[in-house]
Amino acid sequence: MSDWREDGDAIVRDFELKDFAAAMAFVNQVAEMAEGANHHPDILIHGWNNVRLTLTTHSEGKLTDNDRAMAERIDGLPLPSSP
Amino acid sequence: MSDWREDGDAIVRDFELKDFAAAMAFVNQVAEMAEGANHHPDILIHGWNNVRLTLTTHSEGKLTDNDRAMAERIDGLPLPSSP
Repeated sequence: MSDWREDGDAIVRDFELKDFAAAMAFVNQVAEMAEGANHHPDILIHGWNNVRLTLTTHSEGKLTDNDRAMAERIDGLPLPSSP
Repeated sequence: MSDWREDGDAIVRDFELKDFAAAMAFVNQVAEMAEGANHHPDILIHGWNNVRLTLTTHSEGKLTDNDRAMAERIDGLPLPSSP
Protein backbone atom coordinates (compact mmCIF):
# COMPACT_ATOMS: atom_id res chain seq x y z
CA MET A 1 0.00 0.00 0.00
CA SER A 2 3.03 2.26 -0.23
CA ASP A 3 1.57 4.21 -3.15
CA TRP A 4 -1.42 5.21 -1.05
CA ARG A 5 -1.21 7.82 1.65
CA GLU A 6 -3.53 8.20 4.59
CA ASP A 7 -5.61 11.37 4.72
CA GLY A 8 -7.86 11.44 7.75
CA ASP A 9 -10.32 8.56 7.42
CA ALA A 10 -9.33 7.89 3.81
CA ILE A 11 -6.48 6.64 1.66
CA VAL A 12 -5.45 8.63 -1.39
CA ARG A 13 -3.38 7.84 -4.47
CA ASP A 14 -2.39 10.17 -7.30
CA PHE A 15 -1.83 9.01 -10.86
CA GLU A 16 -0.28 10.93 -13.73
CA LEU A 17 -1.35 9.79 -17.18
CA LYS A 18 -0.15 10.66 -20.66
CA ASP A 19 -3.06 12.95 -21.49
CA PHE A 20 -6.73 13.57 -20.84
CA ALA A 21 -7.89 10.65 -22.96
CA ALA A 22 -5.62 8.29 -21.03
CA ALA A 23 -6.89 9.73 -17.76
CA MET A 24 -10.49 9.11 -18.80
CA ALA A 25 -9.69 5.58 -19.95
CA PHE A 26 -8.12 4.85 -16.58
CA VAL A 27 -11.05 6.39 -14.71
CA ASN A 28 -13.50 4.26 -16.66
CA GLN A 29 -11.53 1.13 -15.73
CA VAL A 30 -11.67 2.13 -12.07
CA ALA A 31 -15.38 2.93 -12.37
CA GLU A 32 -16.20 -0.46 -13.84
CA MET A 33 -14.28 -2.17 -11.06
CA ALA A 34 -16.00 0.01 -8.46
CA GLU A 35 -19.43 -0.86 -9.80
CA GLY A 36 -18.56 -4.55 -9.71
CA ALA A 37 -17.48 -4.30 -6.08
CA ASN A 38 -20.20 -1.79 -5.15
CA HIS A 39 -17.49 0.30 -3.50
CA HIS A 40 -16.88 3.66 -5.12
CA PRO A 41 -13.83 5.84 -4.66
CA ASP A 42 -14.04 9.58 -5.05
CA ILE A 43 -12.41 10.33 -8.40
CA LEU A 44 -10.82 13.65 -9.30
CA ILE A 45 -9.56 14.32 -12.83
CA HIS A 46 -7.54 17.50 -12.73
CA GLY A 47 -4.94 19.45 -14.60
CA TRP A 48 -5.67 17.63 -17.84
CA ASN A 49 -3.82 14.35 -17.13
CA ASN A 50 -3.92 13.70 -13.38
CA VAL A 51 -6.26 11.43 -11.46
CA ARG A 52 -6.68 11.35 -7.68
CA LEU A 53 -8.53 8.45 -6.10
CA THR A 54 -9.80 8.63 -2.52
CA LEU A 55 -11.14 5.60 -0.71
CA THR A 56 -13.08 5.48 2.52
CA THR A 57 -16.12 3.64 3.83
CA HIS A 58 -18.78 6.32 4.18
CA SER A 59 -21.24 4.01 5.90
CA GLU A 60 -18.78 3.39 8.73
CA GLY A 61 -17.07 6.76 8.71
CA LYS A 62 -13.66 5.14 8.64
CA LEU A 63 -11.18 3.16 6.61
CA THR A 64 -12.07 -0.53 6.35
CA ASP A 65 -10.77 -3.68 4.71
CA ASN A 66 -13.11 -2.91 1.80
CA ASP A 67 -10.99 0.15 1.05
CA ARG A 68 -7.73 -1.74 1.30
CA ALA A 69 -9.07 -4.49 -0.97
CA MET A 70 -10.22 -1.94 -3.56
CA ALA A 71 -6.85 -0.16 -3.39
CA GLU A 72 -5.09 -3.43 -4.12
CA ARG A 73 -7.37 -4.12 -7.07
CA ILE A 74 -6.73 -0.62 -8.44
CA ASP A 75 -3.00 -1.15 -8.04
CA GLY A 76 -3.37 -4.20 -10.29
CA LEU A 77 -4.79 -2.16 -13.17
CA PRO A 78 -2.47 -1.43 -16.05
CA LEU A 79 -2.00 2.31 -16.36
CA PRO A 80 -3.16 2.95 -19.96
CA SER A 81 -0.23 5.20 -20.70
CA SER A 82 2.02 6.92 -18.23
CA PRO A 83 3.86 10.09 -19.21
CA MET B 1 -24.60 31.19 -15.75
CA SER B 2 -26.68 31.19 -12.59
CA ASP B 3 -25.97 27.51 -11.92
CA TRP B 4 -22.23 28.20 -11.80
CA ARG B 5 -20.61 29.91 -8.86
CA GLU B 6 -17.34 31.75 -8.89
CA ASP B 7 -14.54 30.28 -6.80
CA GLY B 8 -11.36 32.31 -7.07
CA ASP B 9 -10.19 32.18 -10.67
CA ALA B 10 -12.66 29.44 -11.55
CA ILE B 11 -16.35 28.70 -11.96
CA VAL B 12 -17.86 25.63 -10.33
CA ARG B 13 -21.09 23.73 -10.80
CA ASP B 14 -22.37 20.74 -8.83
CA PHE B 15 -24.57 18.04 -10.31
CA GLU B 16 -26.48 15.32 -8.50
CA LEU B 17 -27.21 12.24 -10.57
CA LYS B 18 -29.35 9.18 -9.96
CA ASP B 19 -26.46 6.86 -9.18
CA PHE B 20 -22.81 6.17 -9.91
CA ALA B 21 -23.48 4.81 -13.40
CA ALA B 22 -25.42 7.96 -14.29
CA ALA B 23 -22.62 10.10 -12.88
CA MET B 24 -20.05 8.27 -15.02
CA ALA B 25 -22.26 8.57 -18.13
CA PHE B 26 -22.53 12.30 -17.55
CA VAL B 27 -18.79 12.65 -16.94
CA ASN B 28 -18.04 10.83 -20.18
CA GLN B 29 -20.31 13.22 -22.08
CA VAL B 30 -18.49 16.17 -20.55
CA ALA B 31 -15.13 14.55 -21.32
CA GLU B 32 -16.00 14.05 -24.97
CA MET B 33 -17.10 17.65 -25.27
CA ALA B 34 -13.94 18.81 -23.49
CA GLU B 35 -11.72 16.86 -25.86
CA GLY B 36 -13.55 18.35 -28.84
CA ALA B 37 -13.01 21.86 -27.53
CA ASN B 38 -9.53 21.12 -26.16
CA HIS B 39 -10.63 22.77 -22.90
CA HIS B 40 -10.79 20.44 -19.93
CA PRO B 41 -12.63 21.06 -16.69
CA ASP B 42 -11.50 19.51 -13.47
CA ILE B 43 -13.99 16.73 -12.77
CA LEU B 44 -14.74 15.34 -9.29
CA ILE B 45 -17.01 12.34 -8.86
CA HIS B 46 -17.81 12.03 -5.18
CA GLY B 47 -20.24 10.51 -2.75
CA TRP B 48 -21.38 7.92 -5.28
CA ASN B 49 -23.69 10.13 -7.40
CA ASN B 50 -22.33 13.68 -7.34
CA VAL B 51 -20.22 15.44 -9.94
CA ARG B 52 -18.42 18.75 -9.48
CA LEU B 53 -17.04 20.53 -12.55
CA THR B 54 -14.50 23.33 -12.20
CA LEU B 55 -13.52 25.51 -15.15
CA THR B 56 -10.60 27.90 -15.41
CA THR B 57 -7.98 28.74 -18.01
CA HIS B 58 -4.73 27.43 -16.54
CA SER B 59 -2.58 28.99 -19.28
CA GLU B 60 -3.82 32.47 -18.38
CA GLY B 61 -4.33 31.91 -14.67
CA LYS B 62 -7.82 33.35 -14.81
CA LEU B 63 -11.36 32.87 -16.02
CA THR B 64 -11.77 33.50 -19.75
CA ASP B 65 -14.49 33.39 -22.40
CA ASN B 66 -13.34 29.83 -23.13
CA ASP B 67 -14.57 28.84 -19.69
CA ARG B 68 -17.89 30.60 -20.09
CA ALA B 69 -18.41 29.00 -23.51
CA MET B 70 -17.66 25.54 -22.10
CA ALA B 71 -20.01 26.15 -19.17
CA GLU B 72 -22.81 27.03 -21.58
CA ARG B 73 -22.15 23.89 -23.61
CA ILE B 74 -22.19 21.78 -20.47
CA ASP B 75 -25.47 23.40 -19.43
CA GLY B 76 -26.90 22.21 -22.74
CA LEU B 77 -26.18 18.56 -21.97
CA PRO B 78 -29.12 16.43 -20.95
CA LEU B 79 -28.55 15.10 -17.45
CA PRO B 80 -28.76 11.32 -17.98
CA SER B 81 -30.91 10.82 -14.93
CA SER B 82 -31.40 13.18 -12.05
CA PRO B 83 -32.49 11.85 -8.65
